[in-house]
Parts: sequence; C-alpha cells; structure tokens
Amino acid sequence: MPDHTVKSFATELEAVSTNVARMGGLAESMTTDSINAVVRRDTALAEAVILRDQKVDAAQRELERQVIKLVALRQPVAVDLREALAAWKIAGDLERIGDLAKNISKRTLVLNQSDPIQLTRGIERMGRIVAGRLKDVLDSYSARDVRRALSVWMQDDEVDAHYNSLFRELLTYMMEDPRKIGPCAHLLFVAKNIERIGDHCTNIAETVHYLVTGEDIGGERPKSSDEAERGISAP
Amino acid sequence: MPDHTVKSFATELEAVSTNVARMGGLAESMTTDSINAVVRRDTALAEAVILRDQKVDAAQRELERQVIKLVALRQPVAVDLREALAAWKIAGDLERIGDLAKNISKRTLVLNQSDPIQLTRGIERMGRIVAGRLKDVLDSYSARDVRRALSVWMQDDEVDAHYNSLFRELLTYMMEDPRKIGPCAHLLFVAKNIERIGDHCTNIAETVHYLVTGEDIGGERPKSSDEAERGISAP
Repeated sequence: MPDHTVKSFATELEAVSTNVARMGGLAESMTTDSINAVVRRDTALAEAVILRDQKVDAAQRELERQVIKLVALRQPVAVDLREALAAWKIAGDLERIGDLAKNISKRTLVLNQSDPIQLTRGIERMGRIVAGRLKDVLDSYSARDVRRALSVWMQDDEVDAHYNSLFRELLTYMMEDPRKIGPCAHLLFVAKNIERIGDHCTNIAETVHYLVTGEDIGGERPKSSDEAERGISAP
Repeated sequence: MPDHTVKSFATELEAVSTNVARMGGLAESMTTDSINAVVRRDTALAEAVILRDQKVDAAQRELERQVIKLVALRQPVAVDLREALAAWKIAGDLERIGDLAKNISKRTLVLNQSDPIQLTRGIERMGRIVAGRLKDVLDSYSARDVRRALSVWMQDDEVDAHYNSLFRELLTYMMEDPRKIGPCAHLLFVAKNIERIGDHCTNIAETVHYLVTGEDIGGERPKSSDEAERGISAP
C-alpha cells in the first residue's frame, strides 16, 4: 500500500476522534451551564443551553456520516475498527447528554416562572459530581487511559447516593407545602436527568475500556438508583 | 467471488436481522407486561419483566459482536453496510426499551407496597398506544417498509398529549392528598418511561427510513413532551 494512503487513513481516523472530543466539549459545557442555570435561576443561560443542543445533534449526524464513509471505504479491522465503532457509540452518548442538559434547561425556564425553592444545593452538588465524571471520562478517551475510565465506571454509586437523598428531600418539600408540588415535580426530573448524564458517563467508560482492550468490562455495572428509590418509596 | 461465499454473507446478514427481530419481540413483551403489571398490581409479572431484561442485554452484546465480526471480515458496502449499522442502532434502542420496562416494573414492586391509586387508566391508555407503536415500527423493520416507519414517526404527538394529561392528573392527586405524593412520584416516572419507550420507537422509525432509503428523515422530529409540560408548570 502506498505510504500516502496509510497516512491519509490515520488522518481520517484522527479527524473522527477529534470530532468526538469536540462533541465532548460541547456536551460538557452544556452540562455545566445547565446546572449553573438551574441553580442561579439564570433564564438567559438556560436558553443558550437549549440552542446549543442543535450543534450537538448536527455534530452527531456529521460524525455518523464520517464513520460510515470511513468503514465503507477504508474497511478498517482490529483496533482501527474499534476506534470507528467507539466514536460512533460515544457520539450517541454525548448526543443524549446534550438532550438531557437541554431538558434540564427547559425545566429551568418553567421553574423560573414560580418562586425559588431552597434546595438547589443538592442539585448543585450532584451536578458538580456528574460534570466531574464527564470531564474525567472524556479525558480517559483522549488519553486512551483504561485505568481512568475504570475509575469513572466505579464511581456510579456516589451519584446514586446523592440522587437518593435529593429524591427524599423533594418529596418532603412536596408534603410540607402543596404549592411546591409543581416545581418540585420538575426538580425530580432535573435530578433524574443529572443522574442519567452520570449513566452515560458510565457507558462512555465502558466504550473506552472496549476500545483500548478489545474486551467488555467484566462484572456487574454499578447498581442503579432504582434500587435506592425502593427503600424510600412509602414515605 | 465463489457463490458459496456470497450466499454465506447473505445468510450472516439475515442472521443479524433475525436477531434484531427476536430482541424486538423480547422488548415488545417486556413493554406490554410491564404496563399490565403496573395496571393490575401484579408483582409476579413485574418480577418476571425484571428478570427478562438480562436476556435483552445479553442479546444486544451478542448482536454487537456479530455486527463487528461481520463488518470486519466481510467489509460490506452500500445497503449491506446500512443493514449492519441499522441492526446495531436498533439493538441499542431495544436494549433501552428493555431497561425502561424493567424500571417501570421495579417501580411497580414499590407501588404494590402501598394502597392502590385510581389513575392507572391513563397509564394503561398511554401504555397501549406506545406498545402499538413499538409493534408497528418492528413490523416496518421486518418488512423494510418506509411508509409504515414514517407513520410511526408522525404519531409521536399522540403519546405526548397523553403524557401531558397524566402529568397534570398526578400533580392534582398529590395536591389533594399528601399521602399520595410518594406513589404518585413513582407514577410520574412510570409515565415518563412509557413516553421514552415511544421516543425509542421514533428513533427506530428513523433508522428504518435510513436503512431503506439511505437518507435521514427530513424535517423536525415531532415535538417532545418538554414543550407540553411547560404549559402546566405552575399549577
């Protein structure tokens, strides 16, 4: 095979991976901004997040096209094929993260129409943890660092514990004051969306593991919050 | 190329597509059973749904392995490559549908620990619509029928309207009786999960369209329930 073909293939694969990293940056900023917007009741910031989601969607479509072209024309094997498939998978998770951040922001617009509720501290804490996990897992992808990916993968329970305590807190607020039921219902979904962003970080960690090692992560995935909720279901 | 190779490739591709159809059957039965279990307060059925989710997960992992092997060894192009990628994508949506049905069933176990609430009619109606859409979109995949896929894709608003009315109804119940807040919070998530199964049907419809025509569906996706919720946010 002439040298320039090999180079050009490596360049194409690198372009795919760079595009995933850019999508990652977008999803990261949307996550952080959506949390800040809901905590600070910042309508303008929430609106900016909602608009930014179109960029993530467009980036995903573009990336899928790029991967299909690459696989069809270059027919990569082994680690190169894993690179292409990992990019495809991670782009899917990032697109979902963008959607979830957008949904948090849409709920922020609604929440800002009624009186503030004193409980965004829990949302803020949980949001920071999840934003940190997203940063870490994107770094693990950039560095093809399995150990770092595994450490993100192991941290899922921390987010679940926060979600669990927020769920209780919100139900208590609702019971204390029926006028808070509407806003609190939206905050329940905000909390759930943050937790789901965490789940997508876990997915990405699994993909990085597969990309680098060629194997699935062994063992059971950290338990989901569904289990946690069961204990507090009859308040 | 010797004839037996061609045949064997077609057979492999058919096996992939058959496995997607089987996963579809599993996801469909989980959806229907999870709705029936929550409506009838059937704990045994809910537990069966939860167990069945492992099968869907295993089927997805198997299917991804199959597709990777097929793409790596056979290096398909054009419609054959689209077949492989569509199978991969649809399997991802079906796995998520299985997760959502499992989550509905876990909440059913919780709900069955407290007194029944008279509002499962809305859940039942919404559940039937979504189960019908899932059946239709799986049929459209089996028949490679774009028109049928498009008709599923267009029906998203109907589910949103039901979700919207359920959301209102549940908040009203919560306000009337604080003891219902816990169970109603779980039902909010059950309703959301049903709506999300509907979203995955929309995704699958988009994939079938891409598979058959090689092009993305034009125009905006039917609007999501986020919009709907905004109008009823300050009850």
